[in-house]
Amino acid sequence: MGDVLVMLVREVMSSPAITVRRTDPVRRAIRTLYDNDITAAPVVDDSDRLVGVVSEVDLLRGEFEADPRATMLPPSAAPEPPPRRVMEVMTREPVTVTETTDVTHVIDLMVGKRIKSLPVVRDERVVGMVSRRDLMATLARPDEELRRAVVEALREHYPFGLSWDVTVRDGVAELSGPPHEHADHIADLLAGTVPGIVRVKHLRRGP
Amino acid sequence: MGDVLVMLVREVMSSPAITVRRTDPVRRAIRTLYDNDITAAPVVDDSDRLVGVVSEVDLLRGEFEADPRATMLPPSAAPEPPPRRVMEVMTREPVTVTETTDVTHVIDLMVGKRIKSLPVVRDERVVGMVSRRDLMATLARPDEELRRAVVEALREHYPFGLSWDVTVRDGVAELSGPPHEHADHIADLLAGTVPGIVRVKHLRRGP
Repeated sequence: MGDVLVMLVREVMSSPAITVRRTDPVRRAIRTLYDNDITAAPVVDDSDRLVGVVSEVDLLRGEFEADPRATMLPPSAAPEPPPRRVMEVMTREPVTVTETTDVTHVIDLMVGKRIKSLPVVRDERVVGMVSRRDLMATLARPDEELRRAVVEALREHYPFGLSWDVTVRDGVAELSGPPHEHADHIADLLAGTVPGIVRVKHLRRGP
Repeated sequence: MGDVLVMLVREVMSSPAITVRRTDPVRRAIRTLYDNDITAAPVVDDSDRLVGVVSEVDLLRGEFEADPRATMLPPSAAPEPPPRRVMEVMTREPVTVTETTDVTHVIDLMVGKRIKSLPVVRDERVVGMVSRRDLMATLARPDEELRRAVVEALREHYPFGLSWDVTVRDGVAELSGPPHEHADHIADLLAGTVPGIVRVKHLRRGP
């Protein structure tokens, strides 16, 4: 059935990635994540090479664990520690993917291994980030938008026919219309090429 | 120093909470989380009582683990499982807090025990949710905004004086000006009442 069935990281990743520097103070990194509405960021060195990943919980821990007594409400008399830097709280040697990694592998890493965010690298440079939220975005597409995408994909691959009715409910597409010798192939094609479609129901063989 | 030093959950929580129903299909819950830009939601029953919490990774697992072969690209020939419901993938008996829980306890739970989101309950009803992002929001307040809040808090508590200079850098407030017998108390007060201020530097004793 060919490569058309494979969904690649470049189709779902956020790009360019919002990065933080290893020498950034924890507080600055908190603002970067918060302002950009992300839960983790790749960490780069002065040559823009990937050296780690830093997440919300790493940063919150960095802000609150510096001083065992430090909380949102530290006593003003506490000795003043130096501000902590991202490199002290980040995860080193993060798992990475490339733009051509199959999305199924990303799902294995995120759902199976509970990795939240994966930097996407090309030639040692960070070109994007793929997060749980990016997968959520794909799955959250409204049914009507998915329906239009399926109709468009059908038209693109079969410009000379296939006047099938298409309905989509909760990400499951149903095609109805006259029989077609490539019906199974078409169903596979749609499931593989329209992000957010998780299943294509067997075609009802009409008259 | 009194209750004024305690920051409470009601000051940082998101309210009202976006909830999902235990009988919602996983796909619908994915849309609810995605559309509301949240990473977890309290799960309620038909009487609006809290029965669990469901997170992004619970839902992604629910969407992808239903069928061992199911991925973003399932074969169209796969047998069709019934849509999974939130109650099948949620975390039951979640840890909860109340509106008057001290935020320091929330930090212990989130940073120490890696809990991402805590439902806030009153009389068995969910009145809010406090997430890592809510703590990030507090810590991400710009220094100039924090400075204005400190000045305002000083004016409120000491309307008849205290013309101190206030600077804030990375969440650390520095007060400078003439000596004052209650200087330490004032510093504690500010650290405890201005969300985002993590430390107040000892006052420089001016002339």
